[in-house]
Amino acid sequence: MSNFTPTPADRFAFGLWTVGWSGLDLFGNATRPPLDAVEAVNRLGEMGAYGVSFHDDDLVPFGATAAERDTIIAQFKNALSATGVVVSMVTTNLFSHPVFKDGGFTSNDRAVRRFAIKKVLRNLDLAAELGAPTYVLWGGREGAESGAAKDVAAALDRYREAMNILCGYVRQQGYDLRFAIEPKPNEPRGDILLPTIGHALAFINSLDDSEIVGLNPEVGHEEMAGLNFAQGIAQALWHGKLFHIDLNGQHGPRFDQDLRFGAGNLRGAFWVVDTLERAGYAGPKHFDYKPPRTEDLDGVWETARACMRNYLILRERATAFRADPEVAQALAAARVPELAEPTLAPGETIDDLRAEEFDIPALAGRGMAFERLDQLAMEHLLGAR
Amino acid sequence: MSNFTPTPADRFAFGLWTVGWSGLDLFGNATRPPLDAVEAVNRLGEMGAYGVSFHDDDLVPFGATAAERDTIIAQFKNALSATGVVVSMVTTNLFSHPVFKDGGFTSNDRAVRRFAIKKVLRNLDLAAELGAPTYVLWGGREGAESGAAKDVAAALDRYREAMNILCGYVRQQGYDLRFAIEPKPNEPRGDILLPTIGHALAFINSLDDSEIVGLNPEVGHEEMAGLNFAQGIAQALWHGKLFHIDLNGQHGPRFDQDLRFGAGNLRGAFWVVDTLERAGYAGPKHFDYKPPRTEDLDGVWETARACMRNYLILRERATAFRADPEVAQALAAARVPELAEPTLAPGETIDDLRAEEFDIPALAGRGMAFERLDQLAMEHLLGAR
Amino acid sequence: MSNFTPTPADRFAFGLWTVGWSGLDLFGNATRPPLDAVEAVNRLGEMGAYGVSFHDDDLVPFGATAAERDTIIAQFKNALSATGVVVSMVTTNLFSHPVFKDGGFTSNDRAVRRFAIKKVLRNLDLAAELGAPTYVLWGGREGAESGAAKDVAAALDRYREAMNILCGYVRQQGYDLRFAIEPKPNEPRGDILLPTIGHALAFINSLDDSEIVGLNPEVGHEEMAGLNFAQGIAQALWHGKLFHIDLNGQHGPRFDQDLRFGAGNLRGAFWVVDTLERAGYAGPKHFDYKPPRTEDLDGVWETARACMRNYLILRERATAFRADPEVAQALAAARVPELAEPTLAPGETIDDLRAEEFDIPALAGRGMAFERLDQLAMEHLLGAR
Amino acid sequence: MSNFTPTPADRFAFGLWTVGWSGLDLFGNATRPPLDAVEAVNRLGEMGAYGVSFHDDDLVPFGATAAERDTIIAQFKNALSATGVVVSMVTTNLFSHPVFKDGGFTSNDRAVRRFAIKKVLRNLDLAAELGAPTYVLWGGREGAESGAAKDVAAALDRYREAMNILCGYVRQQGYDLRFAIEPKPNEPRGDILLPTIGHALAFINSLDDSEIVGLNPEVGHEEMAGLNFAQGIAQALWHGKLFHIDLNGQHGPRFDQDLRFGAGNLRGAFWVVDTLERAGYAGPKHFDYKPPRTEDLDGVWETARACMRNYLILRERATAFRADPEVAQALAAARVPELAEPTLAPGETIDDLRAEEFDIPALAGRGMAFERLDQLAMEHLLGAR
Repeated sequence: MSNFTPTPADRFAFGLWTVGWSGLDLFGNATRPPLDAVEAVNRLGEMGAYGVSFHDDDLVPFGATAAERDTIIAQFKNALSATGVVVSMVTTNLFSHPVFKDGGFTSNDRAVRRFAIKKVLRNLDLAAELGAPTYVLWGGREGAESGAAKDVAAALDRYREAMNILCGYVRQQGYDLRFAIEPKPNEPRGDILLPTIGHALAFINSLDDSEIVGLNPEVGHEEMAGLNFAQGIAQALWHGKLFHIDLNGQHGPRFDQDLRFGAGNLRGAFWVVDTLERAGYAGPKHFDYKPPRTEDLDGVWETARACMRNYLILRERATAFRADPEVAQALAAARVPELAEPTLAPGETIDDLRAEEFDIPALAGRGMAFERLDQLAMEHLLGAR
Repeated sequence: MSNFTPTPADRFAFGLWTVGWSGLDLFGNATRPPLDAVEAVNRLGEMGAYGVSFHDDDLVPFGATAAERDTIIAQFKNALSATGVVVSMVTTNLFSHPVFKDGGFTSNDRAVRRFAIKKVLRNLDLAAELGAPTYVLWGGREGAESGAAKDVAAALDRYREAMNILCGYVRQQGYDLRFAIEPKPNEPRGDILLPTIGHALAFINSLDDSEIVGLNPEVGHEEMAGLNFAQGIAQALWHGKLFHIDLNGQHGPRFDQDLRFGAGNLRGAFWVVDTLERAGYAGPKHFDYKPPRTEDLDGVWETARACMRNYLILRERATAFRADPEVAQALAAARVPELAEPTLAPGETIDDLRAEEFDIPALAGRGMAFERLDQLAMEHLLGAR
Repeated sequence: MSNFTPTPADRFAFGLWTVGWSGLDLFGNATRPPLDAVEAVNRLGEMGAYGVSFHDDDLVPFGATAAERDTIIAQFKNALSATGVVVSMVTTNLFSHPVFKDGGFTSNDRAVRRFAIKKVLRNLDLAAELGAPTYVLWGGREGAESGAAKDVAAALDRYREAMNILCGYVRQQGYDLRFAIEPKPNEPRGDILLPTIGHALAFINSLDDSEIVGLNPEVGHEEMAGLNFAQGIAQALWHGKLFHIDLNGQHGPRFDQDLRFGAGNLRGAFWVVDTLERAGYAGPKHFDYKPPRTEDLDGVWETARACMRNYLILRERATAFRADPEVAQALAAARVPELAEPTLAPGETIDDLRAEEFDIPALAGRGMAFERLDQLAMEHLLGAR
Repeated sequence: MSNFTPTPADRFAFGLWTVGWSGLDLFGNATRPPLDAVEAVNRLGEMGAYGVSFHDDDLVPFGATAAERDTIIAQFKNALSATGVVVSMVTTNLFSHPVFKDGGFTSNDRAVRRFAIKKVLRNLDLAAELGAPTYVLWGGREGAESGAAKDVAAALDRYREAMNILCGYVRQQGYDLRFAIEPKPNEPRGDILLPTIGHALAFINSLDDSEIVGLNPEVGHEEMAGLNFAQGIAQALWHGKLFHIDLNGQHGPRFDQDLRFGAGNLRGAFWVVDTLERAGYAGPKHFDYKPPRTEDLDGVWETARACMRNYLILRERATAFRADPEVAQALAAARVPELAEPTLAPGETIDDLRAEEFDIPALAGRGMAFERLDQLAMEHLLGAR
C-alpha cells in the first residue's frame, strides 16, 4: 500500500483564499485569525503542494497603496522562490466589494463594468509577471434575483464584450495566458449567468478568440445543480476546453458547501479522478474548498493534507480498477468498447443501413451487465479487492 | 378583461402523448383508457389549438404492419384537414421499447444504434410528408446509472455521428426540416447526456451542419436542475437556437412532474412568457405535460384548456407590465437599459479605459432598485394593478 | 379592488435583523450601513406593521456593558410606546459568535452549552419584561458536517435537557411565554438537528413540558428540503403546534434565499395564506427575509412594504376563491368534503366493513376532478376571475 | 480480509418486488420477464438471505380467485420451509390499482378508504399466518398535486382513524405484529403526507396505540429531501421507533432511483451502517431497490449479492474505525464523549449556572478537530489504513 504522500509532480494547488478563509459566513463571524500569504506558501510547500492561486484582493487588499502593493508582492515572490511553489493560476475578485453587488462585466451600471475590466487588466499584468499559465474568471455576482432586473441578452453581449477585450489585451501583450471561466448555478446571486459547464462552453463558442478561453469547472458547482461532474468534465474534455479544475466536495442541491475533496459525493470523486487520469489531464489539480469554521489552524492544514491524500488514494484505486483483468472482461460484457466503433461502417451509406433487418426481440433481450461492472468499481474504491 | 380563448393564431400545440397519457407510471397502472389520435385532433381543434405533435409510436404502434400503418396515417391526415390542425412537430420514440434500454444513438450496442437511426430516418420521411417544420430528438435513455458503463467521449462521438447522418439525409432529401434537441438532466437514466440547454448548445456547435440543429428546451427539465428556465431560453435565443419549446410545470429538483403550464413555478412562467413575447418567438407554444392520473378524460381536456388559458393570461399580464409607465421608470432606476450600452465607447482603447479614475464609494453606494421593479412585476402578474 | 394597505390589526411583524441586514454574505462585504433599531421601529410603525422581533445581539451588541445595555433598551422601549409597535417575539443568537461554532445547546463543548443556556435565560427575562408572548429558538449551528463529529442521540439528550431547563425557568418565573422551535435542514451547518417541521414536532413530544413548546416554521426552510410548506403547517396546526410563523420566499433546494414573501414559490404562498386564514391562525405574520444586497435603504423599505402587500393581496384572492360558488361545486366534484366523513360509520364494526363488497371498476373509473379545482384557484390567484 | 459472504445471521432481506421488478417505468416497457416468487425465494436463500417481504399483490395478483390464492400461498410456504427463508415483513399495495389513484386511507372517496382498510385487514391475517413480525405501510398515493384537492387536517384525521382501526384489529386478534410507517416526500404524488421520518414520528404520537407503530425509513426517500439519513434514523432510534429499515441508494433530490445499497451516497451508507451497528439494531436489513432495467436476470442477482456485500464491507470498515485507537483519540480531541455529559451537574440549579463566568475568547478559540476525525473515517472506509 502506498503512503499517499504528495509531491510537486502530482501538481496539487490551493487557493490562498481556501486555507486562508477565516470562517466568516452569512450567519457568523470569523473563527480563525487571518492567514498570511507567505505563511500559506511555506506550509503548502512543506506539505508537497505544487502551486498556489489567488484573487488579486487575497494577496493585495483592495485599495492598498502602490508601495504596500509592491512590498507584499516582493515578499510573496520570495516565498515562492524559497519553496519552489509556483503560481498555477490567478483570478480577480469581482464579487466581494459592494461596488460589484450587481456583478462586474454584466453590472447594469456601466461605470462598474468599466472598473471591473480595469481591475482585471491590472491583475493580468501581475499574473503574467508571476508566470501563471491560467487566468480564471468566476462571475459569482453576474446574475439576478428577479426576472426584469437583468436583460439576459444584453448581459451576454456585455460578457462577450468584456471577454473580447481581455483576450485582445492578452494577445496584444503577448502574454502566455489562457482564460478559464468558472460556472456556477446560483449563490450568491439568485441565478447566475453561465450556470453550468454547458452554458459556459456554448458562450465561449461565441467569442472572437475562443481558442484561448476554456473552463474551470468546480465539483460542487455542478453538483449543486444535481449534475454528474465526471460526465460534465468529460464533455468539456471532448470539446478541448478543460483548462483548469476546482476540486472539492458537496452534498447535492443545497448551499455551496466547499468541503474538502472526497467529502460529499465520494463515488463521484472516484469517477472524477478516473476521468482526469485516463484523459491525461496535465493541468493543476486545484483544491477550492473551505476548511469548516469549526476548525482551528491545525484543522486547516489537516484538510489541505486530506485533499491531496484523497486524490492519491482515489488515483491508486482508479488505476487498479482499470488494470484488473476482471474489469476488462466486465467492460467487454457491457459492450463499452463497442461504443468506440462508428455506427456506420466505413463507406456504408444510409441506404445500406435502411436495408438492414434487425432481430428486435434478440437485441432487446441482451442484458447490459452494468451492475457487475459498477460493483467491481465499488469494491476497488473500497479497497475490498 | 379578456376572455382568454385561444385561436390557432396563438400557435398552441399539444403532443398526442400528453392528452393521450393513460396514467401508467412506475408505481401504478393506467387509470384512463387509450385515447385515439383522431379524437385527440378533433378535440384539440375544437378548443382552438393550432398544432399537434407525436412520436412515431404514438401514432403507429411499434411493430405495426405496413397496411395498419397506412390506414392509421390516412385517418390521421383526414382529421388534420377536417380540423385545420397542423402537425407542428414530429419526434421519434427511442426510449420505450426494451431494445433502447441503454439508449438509441449512444447505446453501447452498435446494432441498437443502427436500428435507432433507421427508425428516425423512416419517421423523417413521415414528418416531411406531413409538413412538420421541426423534428425533436429527446435522448431520454442516452446516459448511464454508473461511471464505467458509458464512455462519455465515445458516446458524444456517436451522438455527433448520428446527428451528422440525419442532417445529411435531410439535406439530401431537400426536406424543409430542422432538428431540435431536448435536454434533460436525469430520469429515466441516472444521468442523461446533454443534460441542460447549455450542454446541448455546446454539442450542437460541434456538428457538421449545426445550422439546422437547435433546441427544444422544456420548462420542467431545466427546473429539475434548479435552473432558471427564462434565463436558459434567453441564452438559447441569444445563440439563435430556440427552434421549439416545451411548456409545462414543475416543483424544482424532484421527479419529472409534467404539470400543466402555469402550475409549479408560476412566477417563472410569467418570465418565460415575457421572454418569448419580447423576443418575437414565432414557433409553436407546445405543451408537453401529463394530466395527472387522478383525472378522467374530462379532466384531461380541462388541463389542455388550462395550459392555453394560463399562457394567454400571462401574456396579457406581461404585456401590461411592459407597457406600464411606472415600470419604464423603475427599469430606468434599475439601470436596465444601460446594460445595452457597450462598456467601451466607440473608438475607445484599453489605455483610455485604464486611465479612468473611479469614485468607488459613490459607485458602491448606488442602490440598484431591483426590488421595486420586481414588485411591480408581481402586482401585474397578480392582476393587482 | 382593495388598496392593500396594512394596519396593526393585520398583525404583520418584522425581525430587526431583516430590515437591518447590511448585506454581508460569505462572498461579499456589507453594502448598506447599519440600521438603528429605533429607526427600524419608527419606519415599520409608519408602514402599518404590528410588531417587531429581535435576537438579543440585534438589539444589544454581544459584550456590551450593563450601562450600554440599559440605554439601548430604554431607547427601544420609548420607540415602541411612541409608535404602538409591540414586541411580538424575541429570540437568542446562538450562532454568530465563534464560541457557538459547534452549536449552543448541543455543542460538544460542555462549557459552551452552559454559556448558551445562560445567554438564553438572560434574554428570557428581557422578553418577559417587553411582553413578548413567544420565544423562538433557531438552532442554526446545532448540527454537523460529518458523521462521527456529533453523537446524535447524545445531542438530542442535551437538546431536551436545555429545553427542559428553559421551560422550567419560565414556569418558575411565571412568565407568560411559550417557546417556538424553528427547524431548518442545513446551512450554515452541513446537516442541522431537527431539520424539518416533523422532526421538531416529534422532539417536542419528548419534552417534560411539551405544552408550552411549539413551532416557528419558515417557508424557505421547508422548501429548501423540497417540502410543501402549506402541507407542513397544516400538520403543525393539526398537532396544535403552530405558535409562530416566518414568511419569506425561496426557490427550492439551494442556498437559503430569504426572499421577500411572495417572491419564490408564489402558488405555494397562496396556499400558505389560505391555510393560515382558514385555520384562524391568530399569531403574528412574521416576515423573516433579507432585502437583497443590491438594494439601498429605500429598497429595504420597498421590500418590507411588499411583504405586507403580497400577504394582503393573497388573502383577498384566497378569500374570493373560497367564496366562489363554482369553487364550492368543484370541491364537491373532487369529493373534498367527503374526506371529513369518518371512514367507519358510527357503531360500525370491522366485521361490517369486511363484509362489504366493492364495485372496484366503478370506483376506479371515477375521475377526481382536481385539475379543474386547481385551475379555479390559479385564476383567482391571478385575479383573472 | 473477510470474504464478505452473507449468512442468515446477518438478517438480510429482500422484497419480492425488488428482484422481481420487470423494468416497466413511466417512459418504457418491461425489459425482463416476470419472476416467480418461488424462484425468488430459492435464489435469495442460496445467496445467504435471511428473509423476504412482499405486498399482497406481489404474491397474489389483484383479483385472483380464492383457489388461485390458496395454491400460490401453499407453494410459497413450501419454498420458505425448503430454504429456511423467513417472511420478515409484509405490506399492502394501496397504490398500483387505479382505484387508489387518490390514495387509500386518505382518498377523498370514502368507499375507496373502506376498500383500502379491508384490503389491509385481509393481508394482516396472511402476515400473521406467515409469522411476519412487522407490517409496513407506505402511503405512496396519500397526497396531492395541488393545494385545494386535499384537506390536510381531514386527511390526517382519516389516516389516524385507519391506523387506530388496524391497531385495534391486531390487538383484538392477538397478532404479534407491529406496524412500520414508511415516509416519502413525493413521487408518485406531487406531495405525500407524512413526508419525512420526523412527520411520521409526530403523527404516530397522535395514535391511540402508538406503542405498536414505528417507522420503516428508506435511505432514498430521506435523501430525496436532501436530508441526512443516518441522522434521521438516529432520531428514530432515540424515540424507540426504528422498527424496520429500507436500504438502497440515491443521488439526492431527483426522481426515486432505488439503486442497490452502497451506490449513490457511499459515505452516507457508511454512517448508516455505523449507526445501525452501534445501536444494536436487530431487525432485518431490508433492501428495497430496483435492479436497473438495463440488466437481465443475471444482473438482478448480481445486484442482490452486491447489496449484501456492500453492507458487510461497510460493517467491517465501521467496526475497524470504532476500534482504532487513533480514532478514540480523535473523538476525544473533538470532545464527542463530552456531549454525553449532562450540561447541568447533578444537583446544580439555574442560579448556579447563571453565576458562572465564562472566558469567551478562550472558549471560542478552541478548534473542534472534526476534520481529522472525519478523514480517519474516510480512510477506514477506503480501506486505506
